[in-house]
Parts: sequence; structure tokens; C-alpha cells
Amino acid sequence: MPVNYATPAADLLFPVAGVRLGVAEAGIRKKDRHDLTLIALDRGCTVAGVFTQNRFCAAPVQLCRSHLAGGDEIRALVINTGIANAGTGEAGRQAAQATCAAVGALLGIGAGQVLPFSTGVILEPLPVDCIVAGLPAAQADLRADNWYAAAHAIMTTDTVAKAASRIVAVNGRKVTISGMSKGAGMIRPNMATMLGFVATDAGIDQPLLDRLVSEAADASFNCITVDGDTSTNDSFVLIASGRSGAAFSSEGDAGWAEVRDAIIAVSVELAQAIVRDGEGATKFITIAVEGGKSVVECRQVGYAVAHSPLVKTAFFASDPNLGRILAAVGYAGIDDLDVDDVRVWLDDVLVAENGGRAPTYVEEDGARVMAQAEITVRVDLGRGSARANVYTCDFSYDYVKINADYRS
Amino acid sequence: MPVNYATPAADLLFPVAGVRLGVAEAGIRKKDRHDLTLIALDRGCTVAGVFTQNRFCAAPVQLCRSHLAGGDEIRALVINTGIANAGTGEAGRQAAQATCAAVGALLGIGAGQVLPFSTGVILEPLPVDCIVAGLPAAQADLRADNWYAAAHAIMTTDTVAKAASRIVAVNGRKVTISGMSKGAGMIRPNMATMLGFVATDAGIDQPLLDRLVSEAADASFNCITVDGDTSTNDSFVLIASGRSGAAFSSEGDAGWAEVRDAIIAVSVELAQAIVRDGEGATKFITIAVEGGKSVVECRQVGYAVAHSPLVKTAFFASDPNLGRILAAVGYAGIDDLDVDDVRVWLDDVLVAENGGRAPTYVEEDGARVMAQAEITVRVDLGRGSARANVYTCDFSYDYVKINADYRS
Repeated sequence: MPVNYATPAADLLFPVAGVRLGVAEAGIRKKDRHDLTLIALDRGCTVAGVFTQNRFCAAPVQLCRSHLAGGDEIRALVINTGIANAGTGEAGRQAAQATCAAVGALLGIGAGQVLPFSTGVILEPLPVDCIVAGLPAAQADLRADNWYAAAHAIMTTDTVAKAASRIVAVNGRKVTISGMSKGAGMIRPNMATMLGFVATDAGIDQPLLDRLVSEAADASFNCITVDGDTSTNDSFVLIASGRSGAAFSSEGDAGWAEVRDAIIAVSVELAQAIVRDGEGATKFITIAVEGGKSVVECRQVGYAVAHSPLVKTAFFASDPNLGRILAAVGYAGIDDLDVDDVRVWLDDVLVAENGGRAPTYVEEDGARVMAQAEITVRVDLGRGSARANVYTCDFSYDYVKINADYRS
Repeated sequence: MPVNYATPAADLLFPVAGVRLGVAEAGIRKKDRHDLTLIALDRGCTVAGVFTQNRFCAAPVQLCRSHLAGGDEIRALVINTGIANAGTGEAGRQAAQATCAAVGALLGIGAGQVLPFSTGVILEPLPVDCIVAGLPAAQADLRADNWYAAAHAIMTTDTVAKAASRIVAVNGRKVTISGMSKGAGMIRPNMATMLGFVATDAGIDQPLLDRLVSEAADASFNCITVDGDTSTNDSFVLIASGRSGAAFSSEGDAGWAEVRDAIIAVSVELAQAIVRDGEGATKFITIAVEGGKSVVECRQVGYAVAHSPLVKTAFFASDPNLGRILAAVGYAGIDDLDVDDVRVWLDDVLVAENGGRAPTYVEEDGARVMAQAEITVRVDLGRGSARANVYTCDFSYDYVKINADYRS
């Protein structure tokens, strides 16, 4: 059960002109479920992506990087669940390559114009034959109004499909942005997340799109963590079709701020949906760190708190065991942190200052906030003006259950 | 239930001449249990300690550092459970100071000759009155053959008392080493662990003891992790009474290697006992990393694997989900790691090489090793000759249960 999140209805996921999606049952790991998604792009789209920093990055991630760098116009994306095609060595690269070749042959484009994505179990070989056999059905299903089905087809341990849409009026034109994401465990994206796709019918020149994809990832997928495990397959891709007629080539263009903000808002919604559906999650926690000397140190503190199993189990128990939060701030790695300057709040309740518990704090106030489904831990480091947010969830019996049972 | 660990019988914990221990029920947080321990040292002992790197270090840790630096001969240690006296600001320092003053008054020594230690809940005030009232009973109980009772009195969420002893013959004399430790959660020591005390009746000059305490911590308490949470109160103390008549002042002294090795062996046994009794632990895991460019990067990889909730739940499930181990190696932060050179074994079973699953690997072999109570994950980074071990445990329902219930 995700925390305060439900998939939007299909008719609230607006089609993006120039972008069609199709799904199919390819039987990659389990039968009777959509596990293959094809996204076909009209000519004239720009595409940019950011990918995992895990050194054991998956074969499809390696191919994505290479095809995006190759300069050929990207015309299709292919996504399979069940098998991650990670830790599969040279055979894995050949399997990803064969998948791209099959998509290319089907759509009459080059293999280098296809971006492949895989998610699922690591170290197992990708059954390319199943994918190739399933592709014609996915092609036959291609429609612009198919985001709802696609968001469901890319799920693995997700309990809910994650998608978001916006329409903004820009320069007298209607610009649509739609996106989807998947992920619930092995979530601590570093430059990108498990799988996130956002498309717009605005036209966005490649250099501008390249900058935006980093900015949007930084404001969204790079701020979330479920278990601190950076996946081998993290990928976040932005697609701009230009079909709305609104086009942008620089940050100074009229209307750009609105489009950028809407794309970032969709990205944040998709990223937070992953945390809300975090494995076993019962609470959505924002760690808001301010007063730092740099964004880097604010994130360091935010992740230390967000990754602490002791803090996460205290949230699960609704126990205002605040000492665990202080301990995590203390071991976050800021060597010259003066703890007497640190202040910590649970929502609006000041809980710690001057190196200890705030004199005004009473346990009832802490218990009231901890009982909520959404909680903000605010930490003021008292040494600068930088700030950063990290989003996470609590740590429950079900996290252990899900991960002890997965694969079996 | 600890993994393959039981407290030695009382008569196997050998007295260390010059070191007497006494316990008492002070009612600090719970009634009817020993929660106060006093250790009295004869004149002529040398004492050295290493302490937590957590910036929110507890008041007693601050006092220990100051008293050790002060140069007065240390004559007593006082340890309470129930309340950690951490995150307690100036009031906490005064409480620790008052505890030392009370011990000093009782034993006729200065407050600066007393080292205080606290363990338990963070952020709550230390009830100094209970401690002061309990001290005479602890004093009346002082005996050299009291390690068994003391090891029990320093427990918190521990399910078993942790103690170890050795007698070695050196230079024609019998040298005794005894020690005790406590800890089960909030365990990722950085320079020291929750609480560890090792005493010997060898005489060891202060500079030599200062070097040894770091060396012993590095080989023992600094290699263990349960949940990655570095405590606010970690302390490890070495005491040398000299009463055996065997005395050492430099690394070149005859017999020093034997004494050093025995002290390190006791420290390793005590540190591993903490992991074996890790909260909810059902398995004892050694992550042995070799072939690194430096010890630092080997530890980085070891801790990444040891802290991954996904790896730890897979161990709990006895599931050879090896991709999770590879993923953790990949995100450990070695930017130029060539994954094609990495090899991974489960005990003697080669599971990964050349960036993927080893051709010789069959799931039955992995499942056989994963079913054991003790497992070694060996990772060869293939880029140097450095090595390091990290010891950890698995992650079970009971970890969540223990930490969601603690305090309540």
C-alpha cells in the first residue's frame, strides 16, 4: 500500500504528440503479465538521458550511453521487466544489441536509433528470443494515449503504477508533459533512478535538453532513497517531440521557465511516487536540511538520516526516538560540525538545540507528529545558507519480507 | 540467539591482578537488574582508550578524552546502562562530572582519575542521584574474579554477555588478559565500539599502550557493523596493571609480540561476539576483500556489501541473490573499478568473474553455502595487493521488531 499515492486515471495521463507506446506479454520471467514496452518516436524528437553511476552498470545502460553519444536520431525505446541484464558481461551486451536490432528491423530504423532498458533480477541471462517474439504485439499496440498501460507494464516489485501529467499554456500554445517511473527497492539513485521516462511535445534543442535532464534528475530522482542501494540499471530519459509548436533553444526563451518548472514538477512527482511505494513503506519522510555550507554536505546529512535503519524503524514504530536522528547527523561525516549550533524539528516541533533536547520539547508533541503518514524532519546545521531535501520512507517488517521472498 | 557464541563460564574469565570489578542495581531505567559497574585499578596501571567519531559524542566520552589527556593516573572506571547521556548538552557534561566526583569521593581519588561510560537511550537526562546512591553497593562488590558479573551488568539490547580471556606465558611469567564488550545495535564503530574493555596484568608503558589500543581497535571493533549506525558512545579501553611482572616499553621487547597478539585476539573475539549477537542476527558474515589498491578501498567495498539491506535480507532468506552483492561492489565508490577484473566467491564457490556470472557456477552450490550459519563473501578487486575484512550479520524481521519496540 503506497503512502498517499494512487495512479492517475488513464484519461488524466495526456497523450504527447509524436510519442506512441505499446505493451505486450513476452513471458520473460513470468507468464500472463505485460512485461515488454515499446515507445516509438516520430522524426524530429530530441532525447537526453542520465544513468546509474554503479560500476556494475547493466548492458542496456552501456548501450543507451553509446547510442545517445552516437548522434543518430533516437526513434524508439524498448523496456523489459523480469530480467535486469546486469552483471551479464559480454553476453549481456550482445543480448541488448540483439534487442535493439530486432526493434530496428521491425520499425525500419537503425539499431543505433533504439535505447534499451531492462529491470528485474541481476546476473540472469536476458531471454532475447522472448523479447523478439513479443515485439510485434507491442508494435500493434502503439498508441499515444497508452501511458496508463505502459506505466503498469514497467512495474516489478512496485505495488502501484507511477505516472504523472501536466498541461501548461506557453506562448499561446498548449504544451503537454507526461511521464512514468518504476521502482520500489534498490533505490538510492545516483544521477538517475531505476526507470523514469518523461516526454513533452515542446520542442527543446539538444544542448538545452541535456542541461535540463541533469537539472530535473537532481531535483527529483537524485533526492530519493528507499534502502541506499544504488541500482545497476538506473535510467532517466527526457523526450521532446516539438509537436506542440512551442520550441526552445536557450534558458532565456520566453515561456521556458514554465515548461522547465512543469517538467521538473512531473519528475518530482514520479520520484516521490517511488518512495511512497517504497518496499514495505508505511510513511513518507522528507529530510529537509538547511543552514549547510554546501548542498553536498546538506545531502550527506540528509542521506545519513534517511539511510539509518534505526531511524527508519523508529518511524515505522511511530516512536519519537530522536536520539537516533541526532546520532545520524553526528556521524554523517562533517568533521567540523559544531553540534551546539544544530537544531532539529519534527514538522513544526523543535526537538533539539544546543547539543541536547530543546527545553520546550514534550514527548506528546513528538508522538503526535510521528503518528502521521507524512513527516518532515528539518535539520538546521547553523553554519551556512545551503539546503537540500532527501525523500525516504520507513523500514518495516514488510521490507524484510519482500526482500527475503523476492526471487522465490 | 547469538550465532555460534556463548558467554564463557565464570571460572574461564581469569582475574587480572590489579583490576577489581563490582556491580550494583541502581534502578537507572529499569528495576531489578545490574545496571552499574565500577572498576577499580590499583596504583601503577596504564590506561589508553579510543572513542567514537560521532560529532554528537556523549558527555562521558568527552570527559574520558579530557581525563586521559589530563595526565592524572586513572584509578577507576564507572559504567552505567539504561541512559546514554548523549545529546544532553551542558547538563549532560555536568552529570558525567558529578558521577566522577562521587566515585572519587568514595575511593579517595580525584574526579579526574575516573573514566565514565554510559550506554542506553539517547537524549534523556542521566539520573545522577540513582548512580550516586548505587555506588557503595558496587564498591562493596569489588573483586578481581568478577568479570562474569560485570559483562552481564553492561548489557542493554544484548541477548548474551560478551567476555573473553587468555593466559600466555611470556619471558617465564604468566600474563593474563581478560575483556568484556557490549553492543548489538547502533553498531558501526569508527575508531572504537559501543563499549569494550580489555585488561592485562602485563606492564605496558603509556606510549606503547597508546599505539596498541589503536592497532587492536583497528583489527577488531573497527571491522564490524550491524546496521551502519555509528553510536554516540563508542569506547574501547585497554588497561595494563603490570602486576604479572612482565613489562614492556617498546615493540622490540622480547615477548611483546605474544602479548600484543593475545590482546588483539581477545579484542577480535569480543568484537565478533557483538556481531554474532547483532540485533535479530541469524548469520555471521565475513566480507573478505582482497586485491585492492589500498586498505581504505577494501573497507569501502566491504562496508558497502555489509550495509546493503538487500544483501542482508538475502542472507536472512538463505537466497543466493548474488546480483545484490555485485551491485553493492559496483556502488561502493571506486570510480575507476574495472568490473571485468572483479571476482566474487561464496566460501569456496566462485560466483562471478569477467563482469558476470562464472560459467562454472550452479545455483545449488550457492544455495548450499547460503544455508550455513557462517558465510564468507570473498571479493577480489583485481587491482592491487591490499586486503581488509568486515564482519557483519544478516537483517531479519527481528531487527525491525527489536528496534520498533525498543524504548516502549
